[in-house]
Amino acid sequence: MAKKKPGRLIIIGGGEKKDEERTILKEVARQANGGKLVVVTVATEEPEEVWKEYREIFKEIGVKKLEHLDVRIREEATSPKRYKLLEGAKVVFFTGGDQLKITSQLGDSAVYQNIERIYQEGGTVAGTSAGASVMSETMLVSGDAEQSHQIGKMLAMAPGLGLIQNVVVDQHFAERGRLSRLLGAIAQNPRHLGMGIDENTAVIVHGQESLEVIGKGAVYVLDGSGSTYSNLGERDEDMEKTMSVFDVKLHVLSEGNRFNLQERRPEVPPKPEDVAASHGAPPDN
Amino acid sequence: MAKKKPGRLIIIGGGEKKDEERTILKEVARQANGGKLVVVTVATEEPEEVWKEYREIFKEIGVKKLEHLDVRIREEATSPKRYKLLEGAKVVFFTGGDQLKITSQLGDSAVYQNIERIYQEGGTVAGTSAGASVMSETMLVSGDAEQSHQIGKMLAMAPGLGLIQNVVVDQHFAERGRLSRLLGAIAQNPRHLGMGIDENTAVIVHGQESLEVIGKGAVYVLDGSGSTYSNLGERDEDMEKTMSVFDVKLHVLSEGNRFNLQERRPEVPPKPEDVAASHGAPPDN
Repeated sequence: MAKKKPGRLIIIGGGEKKDEERTILKEVARQANGGKLVVVTVATEEPEEVWKEYREIFKEIGVKKLEHLDVRIREEATSPKRYKLLEGAKVVFFTGGDQLKITSQLGDSAVYQNIERIYQEGGTVAGTSAGASVMSETMLVSGDAEQSHQIGKMLAMAPGLGLIQNVVVDQHFAERGRLSRLLGAIAQNPRHLGMGIDENTAVIVHGQESLEVIGKGAVYVLDGSGSTYSNLGERDEDMEKTMSVFDVKLHVLSEGNRFNLQERRPEVPPKPEDVAASHGAPPDN
Repeated sequence: MAKKKPGRLIIIGGGEKKDEERTILKEVARQANGGKLVVVTVATEEPEEVWKEYREIFKEIGVKKLEHLDVRIREEATSPKRYKLLEGAKVVFFTGGDQLKITSQLGDSAVYQNIERIYQEGGTVAGTSAGASVMSETMLVSGDAEQSHQIGKMLAMAPGLGLIQNVVVDQHFAERGRLSRLLGAIAQNPRHLGMGIDENTAVIVHGQESLEVIGKGAVYVLDGSGSTYSNLGERDEDMEKTMSVFDVKLHVLSEGNRFNLQERRPEVPPKPEDVAASHGAPPDN
């Protein structure tokens, strides 16, 4: 089989259910494009309630083919009944809850291999809150927010699903004051770009190359690749030393802004009137 | 009279009273150096209670000459009795409360002129929480924290005491998730450096030139001077557009780190062992 282009990721900062305009969930539905949308509730303690909520919303916005993938114990993640449910799915949607439940129950299972195949063959994987964090290679699991990062207290990180490379995702970003924990994560290894997504805000990632912001809030991109100093190697005995890091680049993106993941550069798409004005002119690159 | 060098500012992010080691308040006391320390409670609704708390702490750490400057209405700020109380003071300490109370009650009054003179002649002005914000030329008064800044909703800013130039101070920074409001402030005019100070953390500013961090938390310096894009000029009709700003420089400083305000560069002081190792070697600049 010829190698296909991977599809899209829709990484949501949480809180999108409360938006009456349904901006983000409509985008998720649009990716299904009449095909099957599977809601995965493995992260949550209340899979039935959460499924009912999303079923109602997705029906309301016109999704016809909806399925519920309910995995409560790891054994179920290998059951043919469960992974057959994914057959022909265009979109797989991970709800919020606990990101470790997603990776510990699904990691490397037959169900997960099917989800990955859907993505690799051009489908969409979407996730909100815990379902957003889980997209990274290495995911943030906990770590005190709302106070500055102390070096001795390691951030809890764990291997994620790895659908997006070289990025660490954090969600409910401004709402839960998570700057310092995301800074702690990128200071550990500036190879990772930090991406903090606000509630009711999402990034649509196109084939690992670029992303676009939709929704009401902001997306904070932290780039530590040019940083000139960090004291993370200097752990002290009483474990209470506060992190220092100099020269981190910060971009705040809002709806319509794009970010080139390869070049680590933000972009503003040209306005329609500018495009019209240059109509007929030869391209200048 | 020959022009003297201005003294020091000690700008505290709040919460320093709760620190049992009294790291920051001991530094304030050290600046008094046996001289008079005046506690100004104009910001608070409970001047007596707040004065009693600080009186107890400052006595406990050895300050002998303590005075309470209590101004409840603007008329009192012009009373000779009140400004005589400042005579010979080495340190003036502003408590927390409401920064607008400080500027509206004291701004341009005889009391304030005396405080400014003390600073200009080498004394120390310290302030915590509202007393920290008030140090800036333009101070943050309110503005939603814990959500990303919407351009239409202007940040409430007001003229501060102007003891520090080209800097906007925010306090309780990580604790109250204030990244986006400080970003909003510097995006309005990148001439201002943003300085977000955590609780139980302070910067000691030496004559407008450099500062040093003390205390348990971090100081976040936001430098927008190299930013390449901001959408702050593009206010939209429904006033709900979220801020974008690209290429802001972020430095996270912790205890012992310094920052050169003229060059906008963070500095790590050399470690004692490195100083010892280079002892006797010629200076390399």
